[in-house]
Amino acid sequence: MPRTLYVINPNSNTSVTAQLDAAVDPLRHAGGPDIRCVTLPSGPPGVETQAHVDEAALAVNAFAARHQADAAGFVVACFSDPGVAQLRERVAVPVLGISESAVLTALTLGHHFGVIAILPGSIPRHLRAWGAMGIAQRCAGEIAIGRGVSALADREATLAAMVDAGRRLRDERGAHVLVMGCAGMATFRTPLAEACGLPVVEPTQAAAAMALGRIQLGW
Amino acid sequence: MPRTLYVINPNSNTSVTAQLDAAVDPLRHAGGPDIRCVTLPSGPPGVETQAHVDEAALAVNAFAARHQADAAGFVVACFSDPGVAQLRERVAVPVLGISESAVLTALTLGHHFGVIAILPGSIPRHLRAWGAMGIAQRCAGEIAIGRGVSALADREATLAAMVDAGRRLRDERGAHVLVMGCAGMATFRTPLAEACGLPVVEPTQAAAAMALGRIQLGW
Amino acid sequence: MPRTLYVINPNSNTSVTAQLDAAVDPLRHAGGPDIRCVTLPSGPPGVETQAHVDEAALAVNAFAARHQADAAGFVVACFSDPGVAQLRERVAVPVLGISESAVLTALTLGHHFGVIAILPGSIPRHLRAWGAMGIAQRCAGEIAIGRGVSALADREATLAAMVDAGRRLRDERGAHVLVMGCAGMATFRTPLAEACGLPVVEPTQAAAAMALGRIQLGW
Amino acid sequence: MPRTLYVINPNSNTSVTAQLDAAVDPLRHAGGPDIRCVTLPSGPPGVETQAHVDEAALAVNAFAARHQADAAGFVVACFSDPGVAQLRERVAVPVLGISESAVLTALTLGHHFGVIAILPGSIPRHLRAWGAMGIAQRCAGEIAIGRGVSALADREATLAAMVDAGRRLRDERGAHVLVMGCAGMATFRTPLAEACGLPVVEPTQAAAAMALGRIQLGW
Amino acid sequence: MPRTLYVINPNSNTSVTAQLDAAVDPLRHAGGPDIRCVTLPSGPPGVETQAHVDEAALAVNAFAARHQADAAGFVVACFSDPGVAQLRERVAVPVLGISESAVLTALTLGHHFGVIAILPGSIPRHLRAWGAMGIAQRCAGEIAIGRGVSALADREATLAAMVDAGRRLRDERGAHVLVMGCAGMATFRTPLAEACGLPVVEPTQAAAAMALGRIQLGW
Amino acid sequence: MPRTLYVINPNSNTSVTAQLDAAVDPLRHAGGPDIRCVTLPSGPPGVETQAHVDEAALAVNAFAARHQADAAGFVVACFSDPGVAQLRERVAVPVLGISESAVLTALTLGHHFGVIAILPGSIPRHLRAWGAMGIAQRCAGEIAIGRGVSALADREATLAAMVDAGRRLRDERGAHVLVMGCAGMATFRTPLAEACGLPVVEPTQAAAAMALGRIQLGW
Repeated sequence: MPRTLYVINPNSNTSVTAQLDAAVDPLRHAGGPDIRCVTLPSGPPGVETQAHVDEAALAVNAFAARHQADAAGFVVACFSDPGVAQLRERVAVPVLGISESAVLTALTLGHHFGVIAILPGSIPRHLRAWGAMGIAQRCAGEIAIGRGVSALADREATLAAMVDAGRRLRDERGAHVLVMGCAGMATFRTPLAEACGLPVVEPTQAAAAMALGRIQLGW
Repeated sequence: MPRTLYVINPNSNTSVTAQLDAAVDPLRHAGGPDIRCVTLPSGPPGVETQAHVDEAALAVNAFAARHQADAAGFVVACFSDPGVAQLRERVAVPVLGISESAVLTALTLGHHFGVIAILPGSIPRHLRAWGAMGIAQRCAGEIAIGRGVSALADREATLAAMVDAGRRLRDERGAHVLVMGCAGMATFRTPLAEACGLPVVEPTQAAAAMALGRIQLGW
Repeated sequence: MPRTLYVINPNSNTSVTAQLDAAVDPLRHAGGPDIRCVTLPSGPPGVETQAHVDEAALAVNAFAARHQADAAGFVVACFSDPGVAQLRERVAVPVLGISESAVLTALTLGHHFGVIAILPGSIPRHLRAWGAMGIAQRCAGEIAIGRGVSALADREATLAAMVDAGRRLRDERGAHVLVMGCAGMATFRTPLAEACGLPVVEPTQAAAAMALGRIQLGW
Repeated sequence: MPRTLYVINPNSNTSVTAQLDAAVDPLRHAGGPDIRCVTLPSGPPGVETQAHVDEAALAVNAFAARHQADAAGFVVACFSDPGVAQLRERVAVPVLGISESAVLTALTLGHHFGVIAILPGSIPRHLRAWGAMGIAQRCAGEIAIGRGVSALADREATLAAMVDAGRRLRDERGAHVLVMGCAGMATFRTPLAEACGLPVVEPTQAAAAMALGRIQLGW
Repeated sequence: MPRTLYVINPNSNTSVTAQLDAAVDPLRHAGGPDIRCVTLPSGPPGVETQAHVDEAALAVNAFAARHQADAAGFVVACFSDPGVAQLRERVAVPVLGISESAVLTALTLGHHFGVIAILPGSIPRHLRAWGAMGIAQRCAGEIAIGRGVSALADREATLAAMVDAGRRLRDERGAHVLVMGCAGMATFRTPLAEACGLPVVEPTQAAAAMALGRIQLGW
Repeated sequence: MPRTLYVINPNSNTSVTAQLDAAVDPLRHAGGPDIRCVTLPSGPPGVETQAHVDEAALAVNAFAARHQADAAGFVVACFSDPGVAQLRERVAVPVLGISESAVLTALTLGHHFGVIAILPGSIPRHLRAWGAMGIAQRCAGEIAIGRGVSALADREATLAAMVDAGRRLRDERGAHVLVMGCAGMATFRTPLAEACGLPVVEPTQAAAAMALGRIQLGW
């Protein structure tokens, strides 16, 4: 019987994977599936361009094909949900992208959600996703902090930028809930929520929770 | 520390509550919250009219107020989500309605969802809910089986009517996933899915799973 | 033959009812229905929370049940339209909520409407209503003046806050017409319109006019 | 002081005008504005094409310019609302089109409205109008009876065709309320409603009622 | 065999027509249709009001009727697309409005488009058009430069105003591509794009290109 | 100076490429760009699954990278638009997908468009695309003919199935224009249009025409 929920980090950054692992830890329990967070070493340091996304789609599916026998479900832990559509055609077990799961969770926490993106170039890609999901009407807006992979390493400055973006989404766009538009930053969830006075959805947690529910209920 | 996820059946039908209890059983695990399914004895035999819904909103909140100290979360197990908006203003713990949770779950299982309602008079109420959620574009349609509380007791005929509605939603409206627009019918989930060849979302299961995830992750 | 259009103020504030009465006076004419503005003494001083709204839904319907024989129609004069859906299932005469009527009227007066709310906590409730009505695309935005029942008593400051909100809706959100998101403030309609240079819809007037038309035409 | 609400029939068919006159009669009352239904003799026998609509836009405005001093308001009694946008820029008094007024009224009578059109070629024009109004999500569908001006003279066959269209809108498209997509057929309103078991909105009545309310309230 | 693509300037300003002519010149090629830009001398100096638009609808169709034998297609070079719907019913050859063509082209150049209008009074008319087209969700916003026909003659100040509007659409509304909401300003396309760092769609070019494609492909 | 518009067939079927070549031939003219239709020999016989689409995204971009110096523009001739988003980030020349171009062209030919798909499994993918484009409201529906690559070789039966689907889209869903949801079937365009009495958009032609216009106009 398949026992493992794979949380796939499609970039090669193992510190991101470590943070995913910590983020999903509250969901682990005796008798439940193993939750294994894995790194795709062939991936880029960060998924930043559509080329990265398209390549990640294949890498994610290649990984899944190799681990299919053992898999109770898959979470794709990149905010562009690379390979999710393909994987859903390929396997019968639950497949969740962190972007869609974060947004669906946000819809239960506030009326208009705002998204904090990392790079401005990702925003049109996300907007296409909200359109494809048919929920664009609920999006208050999206603001990028404009920091690349290396700048993200300065975590204090990154958090400050996220707080600034979150407050602007709240004050200028009317967001009632924030979505972190990136993986591997779960430690910022609480300080960001406190600084903005709004609930904050961490997307990998959202996806892993939805996947667990689906696995336990068998759909 | 609050330990209980309350699944509130706002009608007085204890056999419905028993079915809710069986439906959410796969979500119980050692170390997790108690999941308690409760009946509101003051409720009607079935929530069929807007008057029932409006009264249930108060009854649900009165129950929640009495059990707040102990509550880790609440699921309102009626497909009109009575009292959910109020309860969210009242308590800090997760509150999920089965209607919204079922639809959000369905959005990860297929593009267009179809809803099998019990009574035709509920359909406009549901359509308002999809509109309020901003996801109406994803609804392929809704078909009622037209059976009141007593007719539902004939479970074979009820299942046959649901299968017929599900097939029509699939063939005439293009549904890729079905949502059962009622509580307490989880035993029909598998035969309905098999007869229609589509995934079927049972709403109380969907809501309880989302609530559990929210509780475990603390948002 | 039923002769009375009831305009129900679901809060207990009789000065609000007096203002409703003045607001609808231009609609009274010989041979037309009596227009009676009534206070529900069991209501809160102001409808501010979802709990107030849900309780008002029952109180409105209880009042209507007692006056049904005599009623030519009902207007529910609270901007959350409490009890309107239930009342429509219960009676055959016209039932209009002031929120929906105000918005429908605004749609004939400008392309994008802006709403001036009283409290920020009401905005998500209103946004759900625009979504349920399927007209969210026409809403330029909503701004709350953030004044509770007692602060509203300072009418000069209240008007100044409404003018400020109206100008922001015009300049920052592109509103072409304003909707007053509250009952009992009809005396502000003209000064607000003049200060903002935009048409302003007073919701109780909008609803009473629609109700009268429906009564006269028999639908 | 302007005293007249003009209901402008932009076609040259005086029997249509006579029917408009009867339709709005229940709205006349002592002390209220005169309601005058007028024929534009230069118009076509029926407004059937976009060329007719575009010509009617000018004729309606030319008429209004000549009667502006005397006008308390204008209703344009053609279901393509010709000239309404122009007239709104030209005069300060209320201007209502029967198409938009009918739809806005229908939104208070049922969730999804269905439209019974006369000619199939008008349907795309109407669909553009629902889109421009931002309410397309509420339209269940539109069915044309396919009868030209002369065929409409056979009123029994016309009613039968409308009943058939109405029942199809109810059964196949899920309409909860019907809109008559034409002027001058108010006598069919009651038999159509009875045959279909749904409320039916007669558009000229809807527009005249909205205009009266706007006149009485001064916006 | 019809050989001419008519680009109709419905205002009487021949210098606008000269600019249209230069704008579409890159589309001319040996063996392709003649592209003739024509002025309607009966038109106003600029199409500014709905009255102008409605009159232009007739003038455009009258012109087209006179040149139908010779026409391979028509472009209506006014950003309110006057007469396009009528002309499509009247002729079998391609008919393109510059407003719709500009927007459809913009949809391939960026996710959210912003429109630079000339006069604020035109914005609601444009918003109705985006609604009728069903693409309003892609519109980031519209800002008018507020310059009448004579003020437009100061081309330096006009360009500066357009750059200012373009930057605001980019920074405050999130536009990824700009649409020039007017005809006859193609010479501003490049400087505007460079100053704003965004692609800019010139609407007459967009429409003429779409018309040419349609003509060559025979649909 | 780049001189070539590449029309990329991402499947390995050279007879499809030959048909693309014939389809775009009317767009070739002296002085215009070379239009070269190319086959990606590494592709599958037909793009049928999301895995095919995701792999095609990379193959298309690899091809484009090799031919970038020479390219005036790119058309991706597969109805799932594989690699279009990535290619737009990678090159400065026009990039058009046949699916989006077909739909944008259809929007100028009729109000509601219907799509004839090849396989039912592609429909959700297309629906996501219409959502991402923000034009889902204009889609009347989509019907698959359910024929795989080999069955498509029986062209008579394929055309008959497409005619049947087109008539159903017209009669049951209200389509005013049809879009062929596949590449390489341009020879069916005219018989399909004649049999259905509706305009039919052939997607590769639509995209090549839009690309040509963009190239000639330099945006």
